[in-house]
Amino acid sequence: MNRTTLLDLLAEVQRGTITTEQATAQLANLPFEDLGYAKIDHHRSLRTGLPEVIYAAGKTPAQTAEIFSRMAATGVAVLATRATSETFEAVHTLTPEATYHPIARAITHGSALTTQGKIAVLSAGTSDLPVAEEAAVTAELFGVRVTRITDVGVAGVHRLLAHRDTLSNADAIIVCAGMEGALPSVVGGLVGVPVIAVPTSVGYGASFAGAAALLGMLNSCSPNVTVVNIDNGFGAAYTATLIAHAAHR
Amino acid sequence: MNRTTLLDLLAEVQRGTITTEQATAQLANLPFEDLGYAKIDHHRSLRTGLPEVIYAAGKTPAQTAEIFSRMAATGVAVLATRATSETFEAVHTLTPEATYHPIARAITHGSALTTQGKIAVLSAGTSDLPVAEEAAVTAELFGVRVTRITDVGVAGVHRLLAHRDTLSNADAIIVCAGMEGALPSVVGGLVGVPVIAVPTSVGYGASFAGAAALLGMLNSCSPNVTVVNIDNGFGAAYTATLIAHAAHR
Amino acid sequence: MNRTTLLDLLAEVQRGTITTEQATAQLANLPFEDLGYAKIDHHRSLRTGLPEVIYAAGKTPAQTAEIFSRMAATGVAVLATRATSETFEAVHTLTPEATYHPIARAITHGSALTTQGKIAVLSAGTSDLPVAEEAAVTAELFGVRVTRITDVGVAGVHRLLAHRDTLSNADAIIVCAGMEGALPSVVGGLVGVPVIAVPTSVGYGASFAGAAALLGMLNSCSPNVTVVNIDNGFGAAYTATLIAHAAHR
Amino acid sequence: MNRTTLLDLLAEVQRGTITTEQATAQLANLPFEDLGYAKIDHHRSLRTGLPEVIYAAGKTPAQTAEIFSRMAATGVAVLATRATSETFEAVHTLTPEATYHPIARAITHGSALTTQGKIAVLSAGTSDLPVAEEAAVTAELFGVRVTRITDVGVAGVHRLLAHRDTLSNADAIIVCAGMEGALPSVVGGLVGVPVIAVPTSVGYGASFAGAAALLGMLNSCSPNVTVVNIDNGFGAAYTATLIAHAAHR
Amino acid sequence: MNRTTLLDLLAEVQRGTITTEQATAQLANLPFEDLGYAKIDHHRSLRTGLPEVIYAAGKTPAQTAEIFSRMAATGVAVLATRATSETFEAVHTLTPEATYHPIARAITHGSALTTQGKIAVLSAGTSDLPVAEEAAVTAELFGVRVTRITDVGVAGVHRLLAHRDTLSNADAIIVCAGMEGALPSVVGGLVGVPVIAVPTSVGYGASFAGAAALLGMLNSCSPNVTVVNIDNGFGAAYTATLIAHAAHR
Amino acid sequence: MNRTTLLDLLAEVQRGTITTEQATAQLANLPFEDLGYAKIDHHRSLRTGLPEVIYAAGKTPAQTAEIFSRMAATGVAVLATRATSETFEAVHTLTPEATYHPIARAITHGSALTTQGKIAVLSAGTSDLPVAEEAAVTAELFGVRVTRITDVGVAGVHRLLAHRDTLSNADAIIVCAGMEGALPSVVGGLVGVPVIAVPTSVGYGASFAGAAALLGMLNSCSPNVTVVNIDNGFGAAYTATLIAHAAHR
Amino acid sequence: MNRTTLLDLLAEVQRGTITTEQATAQLANLPFEDLGYAKIDHHRSLRTGLPEVIYAAGKTPAQTAEIFSRMAATGVAVLATRATSETFEAVHTLTPEATYHPIARAITHGSALTTQGKIAVLSAGTSDLPVAEEAAVTAELFGVRVTRITDVGVAGVHRLLAHRDTLSNADAIIVCAGMEGALPSVVGGLVGVPVIAVPTSVGYGASFAGAAALLGMLNSCSPNVTVVNIDNGFGAAYTATLIAHAAHR
Amino acid sequence: MNRTTLLDLLAEVQRGTITTEQATAQLANLPFEDLGYAKIDHHRSLRTGLPEVIYAAGKTPAQTAEIFSRMAATGVAVLATRATSETFEAVHTLTPEATYHPIARAITHGSALTTQGKIAVLSAGTSDLPVAEEAAVTAELFGVRVTRITDVGVAGVHRLLAHRDTLSNADAIIVCAGMEGALPSVVGGLVGVPVIAVPTSVGYGASFAGAAALLGMLNSCSPNVTVVNIDNGFGAAYTATLIAHAAHR
Repeated sequence: MNRTTLLDLLAEVQRGTITTEQATAQLANLPFEDLGYAKIDHHRSLRTGLPEVIYAAGKTPAQTAEIFSRMAATGVAVLATRATSETFEAVHTLTPEATYHPIARAITHGSALTTQGKIAVLSAGTSDLPVAEEAAVTAELFGVRVTRITDVGVAGVHRLLAHRDTLSNADAIIVCAGMEGALPSVVGGLVGVPVIAVPTSVGYGASFAGAAALLGMLNSCSPNVTVVNIDNGFGAAYTATLIAHAAHR
Repeated sequence: MNRTTLLDLLAEVQRGTITTEQATAQLANLPFEDLGYAKIDHHRSLRTGLPEVIYAAGKTPAQTAEIFSRMAATGVAVLATRATSETFEAVHTLTPEATYHPIARAITHGSALTTQGKIAVLSAGTSDLPVAEEAAVTAELFGVRVTRITDVGVAGVHRLLAHRDTLSNADAIIVCAGMEGALPSVVGGLVGVPVIAVPTSVGYGASFAGAAALLGMLNSCSPNVTVVNIDNGFGAAYTATLIAHAAHR
Repeated sequence: MNRTTLLDLLAEVQRGTITTEQATAQLANLPFEDLGYAKIDHHRSLRTGLPEVIYAAGKTPAQTAEIFSRMAATGVAVLATRATSETFEAVHTLTPEATYHPIARAITHGSALTTQGKIAVLSAGTSDLPVAEEAAVTAELFGVRVTRITDVGVAGVHRLLAHRDTLSNADAIIVCAGMEGALPSVVGGLVGVPVIAVPTSVGYGASFAGAAALLGMLNSCSPNVTVVNIDNGFGAAYTATLIAHAAHR
Repeated sequence: MNRTTLLDLLAEVQRGTITTEQATAQLANLPFEDLGYAKIDHHRSLRTGLPEVIYAAGKTPAQTAEIFSRMAATGVAVLATRATSETFEAVHTLTPEATYHPIARAITHGSALTTQGKIAVLSAGTSDLPVAEEAAVTAELFGVRVTRITDVGVAGVHRLLAHRDTLSNADAIIVCAGMEGALPSVVGGLVGVPVIAVPTSVGYGASFAGAAALLGMLNSCSPNVTVVNIDNGFGAAYTATLIAHAAHR
Repeated sequence: MNRTTLLDLLAEVQRGTITTEQATAQLANLPFEDLGYAKIDHHRSLRTGLPEVIYAAGKTPAQTAEIFSRMAATGVAVLATRATSETFEAVHTLTPEATYHPIARAITHGSALTTQGKIAVLSAGTSDLPVAEEAAVTAELFGVRVTRITDVGVAGVHRLLAHRDTLSNADAIIVCAGMEGALPSVVGGLVGVPVIAVPTSVGYGASFAGAAALLGMLNSCSPNVTVVNIDNGFGAAYTATLIAHAAHR
Repeated sequence: MNRTTLLDLLAEVQRGTITTEQATAQLANLPFEDLGYAKIDHHRSLRTGLPEVIYAAGKTPAQTAEIFSRMAATGVAVLATRATSETFEAVHTLTPEATYHPIARAITHGSALTTQGKIAVLSAGTSDLPVAEEAAVTAELFGVRVTRITDVGVAGVHRLLAHRDTLSNADAIIVCAGMEGALPSVVGGLVGVPVIAVPTSVGYGASFAGAAALLGMLNSCSPNVTVVNIDNGFGAAYTATLIAHAAHR
Repeated sequence: MNRTTLLDLLAEVQRGTITTEQATAQLANLPFEDLGYAKIDHHRSLRTGLPEVIYAAGKTPAQTAEIFSRMAATGVAVLATRATSETFEAVHTLTPEATYHPIARAITHGSALTTQGKIAVLSAGTSDLPVAEEAAVTAELFGVRVTRITDVGVAGVHRLLAHRDTLSNADAIIVCAGMEGALPSVVGGLVGVPVIAVPTSVGYGASFAGAAALLGMLNSCSPNVTVVNIDNGFGAAYTATLIAHAAHR
Repeated sequence: MNRTTLLDLLAEVQRGTITTEQATAQLANLPFEDLGYAKIDHHRSLRTGLPEVIYAAGKTPAQTAEIFSRMAATGVAVLATRATSETFEAVHTLTPEATYHPIARAITHGSALTTQGKIAVLSAGTSDLPVAEEAAVTAELFGVRVTRITDVGVAGVHRLLAHRDTLSNADAIIVCAGMEGALPSVVGGLVGVPVIAVPTSVGYGASFAGAAALLGMLNSCSPNVTVVNIDNGFGAAYTATLIAHAAHR
């Protein structure tokens, strides 16, 4: 049942050709989801102005390029994550104004309608930068000001303390760390805002591709720390954006 | 929005006090689920006659007894799984005609409306009997004839082969096994019907409370084997019942 | 002891050259399996008409091609799973009428003798398609009608609800999902037929190559869900076929 | 160096008995943390009015009672989590006005200074209630309005959809679920606010005491989901409170 | 089909009332396993004189006592493993001549018919003694001479070297060790006979209830080491007995 | 201290230039291991005639070739395991009479001095053949007759039963199986000789590279099963050889 | 061969009743370990004066008391770890001067001969105190001065920084921490001495009984951190003692 | 606040333009870390003379070369670990006097200012050499004399015993071992100095890339064993250096 058939049904009620009882019976089984889903999506899109996102890892360069191009054509901002330079070449051919962020492995097009709030994105070591940059590029495209703080691992805690003011002024803080994943706990103890921890697959041996960092973050002794999946800079930025936007609505 | 308010809305359409366009907008956000959910549940219940089920493990004897009593009062068959004898005492006080199955740790009340199809429930060793009995009692209450075959572990494969005729005539076979969990593969190779494997938490050392059996069953080389959670005799019986009923509809 | 030697033995009994006691002793040690096995297989094959299956992953293209060719020569339908395009080239040279299904990574030859029953094959995301297609191609070759429903992940549950009618009419439903593996539970709650869950190795980080989805499915709160090994689309289709055929026998 | 010795040092500078260069050298090694830590804590406490929290699980009833009593004496609100009824008896003796929340296993004293924002706390099944209640009681004491929505597991997704309006109006949503942990993904797809997922140790067999739910939540396909440790209702409420307060500052 | 019905069938062949062709068809489906299984079991029992074994862990004292009593009545030696003193009391009532081995947690009755060969049973520490004693008691009852060598952990390798002669003269060596499980590798390097390693659940922390020892033994750099399940002293003794008996046949 | 210096010391005692007390003190710290180790090794080598073995996986072709060549020059038989065809080319250049076994990935030179006893090497599927062949080639070079039985997976248990006579006559049985690793249990139940189980890394998904098969074998319900590391055909053959030789000494 | 038989042998050489060649042959097989082992142990004991240690966890109170008593009778200091108060009662009866340390669960008798060097023992939270006290009590009895620093978790890093001077002056630092196990990394970054990390089994949910802390510590980004087993305060103290003693020799 | 602004503040105190109370308030918030951090680092560097270290694994050859070059220009010794030969080429171009250690995969430049103390570096097998060499090269550059002892696996314990004197004279011992990781326990039992165990990722099957060795080492029954991450030869050498230097200060 689409909008047309719904109008037809109601017209029949109006004309009295079916009773309200009969219409109730039909509506109780209404597959309204098709209708409702589209509308809700549309409403949300209009209200939030959040960009469209493509996860490029499981797609061929050609597939990503075509999807990217069609989305960009609608005028909204577009983000492709986990994109290789080969994928960018394909995207660039169809969407020449797209931009590649090589460290973040992200392609963007357009920009946020408005920018509200500010977050900090911390990385424990230089190897965590790709994940941190994915988070930073995502948040900027979604309309949040980002301060990047790099190389502030817990083995040199003074370097972190020097940034206390910046941290305290953020609406939310994203902390990317591999190895023992201890940085979010230390940061969480310094500030009174939500800290979103992103374990990275950096390390060797018993780091088990990020699992050690993940467990460390889940067991954080700071109660303002929540965690996303290993290397999921995008997801951290998404939630941080929601928090920052809400704080400045 | 319940049935009453829906009738009201449609009456307004009928009277012309709101337009069909306005009614469409309201209906697009219709919380029809409350209405629809109840009805569907009712329909399903009436059609299938499947019993109500209570998972007693996380409830106090008093809670289980009260829920059991109210369900039994509606006339449908009732099953409580993972019930201790203490729980049965509480149930028995409120529902004197309830029956306790001590090996299966199950309480039943009433019986299936009709019985269609037949399954076999195998257990590899005597320690697997509680899980096998939970499956058997469940299937019988749900309306399936059950043949129990016990103590047919793979270390004595001849004992199993002696039951080949029984196995071949079943609509579905439930195989409960701990330790190495090899029995479903052997059974699966003997028959041409679905085999539902239930790993049990029987064993010691590197059985890891059923995980070894679970992995063995998931890696079965017989393609007609599917698996449920460790010790989940109830779930195996539920699916086996669906298969047996469908085969005799 | 083959059929000939058995006949000889019985002839000796008939002639009285050995006693029945002596024959009993010999028959008690009878290696009847060689005889019996072949016969049973033959009977099953004639009765079910199910195709022959080759697991191509552990074989060279040349090996797969030769086995495929010999099976096809007997007139039965043949399926090779996990076949690369390189393997198909080798198969195609020997069996020109074979067909390649690139998404499913499957090669088929011939078709089912009869088609009975219908199943639905759902995939949560586009990355789950190879596994879903392996299931769909298998079921079709084994003689079941298949409805494919794609991209109905739980983060957009309305898309799934729109297919409720299709789901309710299937004899069995195969649900392929990676990441959190939540889709089978949601589907299981909507329908009253067996749901076979296939975890896929889609995801990153803490998905641990499908283990997270596997665990999610094993812990499903819907009792009509059973599970097969990660990426085992073939196994899911095999069991779904048995269920669908039995329901329409 | 405490406040007194610092004043002494500065007095010496004022008197000219040490040079500014000498004072700089001493201050560069200043253990200001003792001083600074207390002050910052005091400032934060005055500004936020957040309650003091005691984790009672690792403490004797007497220890918890004494700490609770001293904290309550300062006039701030106090929360003790993971408290048995035995612990409450001890607390009650010293702090008669304390309140016990048996399902949440929490003891509270006092109330939030102000209440800002609103969150929803969902639980998939009745067994998840203790964790959900810990979250709800915490958030209320910290000054957030809480809507509790219970028994909305994914196997009956219509029950969840009926609460869509409530969910959409929350500043943040806490979702507690054991078994397959699928509920946060479904909720995340329905709303545009942060969803904080709390895996619970509910389930049996391959739920591995909450690990299956944890992995499911970390692999959520909804980008607005972040995760806390198993059974950590308190931590989820802490972050949800920060988000809700910031949204209404 | 039992022995009687088989004789009947052959008699019919003899009389000519059925043809050899008809008898062949019937015999091809012969459920000979019931017949054959019992006979083979009987033969094996008569030939080997190996005792009957009861795994008492999953049985009530009464159940174990009854089984034990019936087995003992047949005159064979009987072994019950994992038996508590409470179980022994029950056994002793029915079978007064049974003997309890408290360290080994084993009950024995009777003795081996003959004793052939000799093995050594080593334990790394005093905590490994229960497992080592289960192995020693088993092997002695099965008819092997046992030399016990205790407290020869790898942290004091000289103690082990002092027993080199004894080790070299054994037909097989059982090594029970928890913690790091290193002893079998050292022993394996000293001798030219099979070493059967038994990981014990001794240790704490990252010993993971014997899993660390198990992994260490599986990765042994000595090629004459094979491994049984954690704490499985019985299984190790069973295989060691087979080796020792064969060496002296 | 080598043989020369020991003789010198004893000569001094003989001459009376040092006392027996002084000599005792020196000998108590005697580094006799260098002396003793070489001698023991020599003795063992002369007695057993067992070949030298090279694990080629961690070595370059050139390194393996050089070691192989020097060992072969001493006249003993030589075995290199895990050798690629590239490694064989290098070996062949220096040792032209060496033989390559491509399925076993092994290189051999020479032959056993004597052949005693017989073992059976079973493989569950064709993918297990490389491991089974490594075991078979090793055992033959070490001087044991080998019967190979292939493709007897538990899903077709009749094929296995047809080989019962061969199995019963072996001194030891090696069983190589991946996937669920159930075959050793079934074999162990059929025979009264030691069964050495070799899990193979065959399978996909939740086989976890052989870990599922390993766990299955460790939890075998047949007490005559011991286990070696995943894919360790060599180790299984080494122990089987010791057993077979001892049985025919 | 003991000291007497060795003297006899040498006397024979001296007398010329056996040749030096014959004596060499006998000595090459010399079981010198019994002799040598005792002597070395004796020497070490006299030189180091380190106490005797009893691991009480796997022993009955009576066993521990008897061993303790006999050790104490020799005059050396004695330490029993993992001792319950029940065990202490038994010890106290036989050794009245023994002292119980209830938090450390340790019993000591006597004191170190000399005290050299100093270490710091840190605990992240109050729940880590039992492990930290076991380390502290051990080190003191072994002869090292100990500074205890408690409740310096990484969520309040200023508290830790206030102790920087104490930390820098220690010869070695033991850090006990559960949950995320991050403290050793932060401490390691502050000092230039060895840091021995002790994961504790404190925490809940995904702490997995200390495994999360263990992994965090193994992945420490500070290169001066080494790790011992979960809850192994004794082992940490043992190594710290060796380091501190060596630094002041 | 930098040094200049601090001097300004103190000058104001000196002049009396602000009171000591006002200065105290400002200093309490002093961001002294920037100032302090640099100074502390500088002091430590001057005092210890320890080299700079680059972890090359996560960097491009060009990046490593540039960092290496700038560090070398300051005159201190420089170490790059996990460096490929390709990386060395890039380093060599900018820093011609750099040296490559191919087995250790390390690049060094310069040498230690002084050499104090001695350690032993043991490797169990030839495959452990890369990790052992990383440890040895590191310790030598940091100023410790190193004795390398190779191929002393526990399966031939006499080879190890022959080195007892060397081991006893070391200030600390590094033991690198894969497979079962048993060597550190044996070494720990022979000596009275700290043993630092390095699990290596050598092995196959159930070695799980070093995890088996890691667990074995953590469960060592020798109390003088501490453990570092898998393959972390650098970290072991770093701590061993601290111990050796302190022992000879």
